[in-house]
Amino acid sequence: MKEITGSTQLFGIVADPIAQVRTPQVLNAWFSRQGVDGVLVPFHVGSEDLATAFDAFRRMRNLGGFIVTVPHKTDTVALCDEVSERARAIGAANAVRREADGRLVGDMFDGMGFVEGLKSQGHDPRGRSVLLLGAGGAAAAIAHALAEAGVEQLTIANRTVAKAQAIAERTMHSVPGIRVHAVEKAESANHDMVVNATSLGMRADDPLPIAASQLRPGLLVAEIIMKPEMTALLQTAQENGCTIHLGRHMLDCQANLMGEFMLGRSVA
Amino acid sequence: MKEITGSTQLFGIVADPIAQVRTPQVLNAWFSRQGVDGVLVPFHVGSEDLATAFDAFRRMRNLGGFIVTVPHKTDTVALCDEVSERARAIGAANAVRREADGRLVGDMFDGMGFVEGLKSQGHDPRGRSVLLLGAGGAAAAIAHALAEAGVEQLTIANRTVAKAQAIAERTMHSVPGIRVHAVEKAESANHDMVVNATSLGMRADDPLPIAASQLRPGLLVAEIIMKPEMTALLQTAQENGCTIHLGRHMLDCQANLMGEFMLGRSVA
Repeated sequence: MKEITGSTQLFGIVADPIAQVRTPQVLNAWFSRQGVDGVLVPFHVGSEDLATAFDAFRRMRNLGGFIVTVPHKTDTVALCDEVSERARAIGAANAVRREADGRLVGDMFDGMGFVEGLKSQGHDPRGRSVLLLGAGGAAAAIAHALAEAGVEQLTIANRTVAKAQAIAERTMHSVPGIRVHAVEKAESANHDMVVNATSLGMRADDPLPIAASQLRPGLLVAEIIMKPEMTALLQTAQENGCTIHLGRHMLDCQANLMGEFMLGRSVA
Repeated sequence: MKEITGSTQLFGIVADPIAQVRTPQVLNAWFSRQGVDGVLVPFHVGSEDLATAFDAFRRMRNLGGFIVTVPHKTDTVALCDEVSERARAIGAANAVRREADGRLVGDMFDGMGFVEGLKSQGHDPRGRSVLLLGAGGAAAAIAHALAEAGVEQLTIANRTVAKAQAIAERTMHSVPGIRVHAVEKAESANHDMVVNATSLGMRADDPLPIAASQLRPGLLVAEIIMKPEMTALLQTAQENGCTIHLGRHMLDCQANLMGEFMLGRSVA
């Protein structure tokens, strides 16, 4: 990468733990391709110290912005001086831009990154009927982005159905006209796409997030887990004749969105 | 330089203004030569925000330490949890190590770096008679280090002579046996070396820190300003037949001292 000087603009990724993050590699490569004199470095900050870190970030005049990940995405909404409607609706933010006056402005790109990733592989979700598995922060962001992208119908499946229902209601409130259902049991009938937004698949002994019998030929099965690249879900889906979509496309497409946002360029 | 990952250790340079600092280039090259997975980035923080920044630095778990420069070297002594005897005697610190428990430990290497730089260019100050211009943090550090390096006589010239007198007294207290005088007007007679420790010369329209008529042939004229490399003082000195010594030698020799200190290795 380019040499860091006193006039290089500073960016960060705030997380706890920090060692596993891939954002420095991805964003520094993006800065380099864009010809931006910027560097993104890891900031290892725990939840109890996040407010103090935000205070310092406001006062660090050469800081352009920072990415936020586990476990800080929800707290970031309250700690920013301003957040996008999208971030407020989702209840989470994962990118913060520092304005010249020190104000911190948050936005959320997990969902948009996922949708852009789908499109980049030729899977425009417009008009599709999608079964979304999980009801955590990632699911909330993806539900919102799929609704904005014009899916025909969205079903959110989660064992604790009340959490799925809460996301369904927030999504219908933010994106008028979309139909979102919450269910306890994941059934793919009447859907042409399944998205795993649970964390099941990160560990080798995790159960599948949906019964293998539900993975019928022709279904599009999308993952957001990046490591391992081929989760048990994707392997089973492939064996069953489904089309599969890898988790890494989401981060690849988010890099551009988050980079543009932190530089103060307009994004959708 | 090496790719930055989530496990790269973070280091900083804290200054206001920031664009002119050369520490990122010098220390990142040093990390690279040492095989250390570390990166040093600029932190632009104003005086009114320094305490808040230090609070955040204590809590930033992957921060190894930071360099401090204008205008923060004096305030750093009070803001650290512990400082070396040398830094306390000088009343300034320019390097801070973050211990694993978050404690910030300060030390001062400006003077040592300057003396090592002189020696590296064949100008051992031992036995010399030195006229030191300025009575700020850098002057205090250089006075202390020149005294420790065995100069025969030291004169500190500063318009506000009380500030020069304070440094003279502190230096004589810390390094018994050295004679230090404070004067208002810089006169090079009876000295064989002049050191500019003021900030005059950083801007193109700055006056010289000493009258051009004082720069007689044979005098050694040393600068600590790095940008521009050839200050008006050095240009005039060269025209007048003086030997000149560039500001960058101080930083080059300090890099090793500060890097070792921030990594927790022992230094002199």
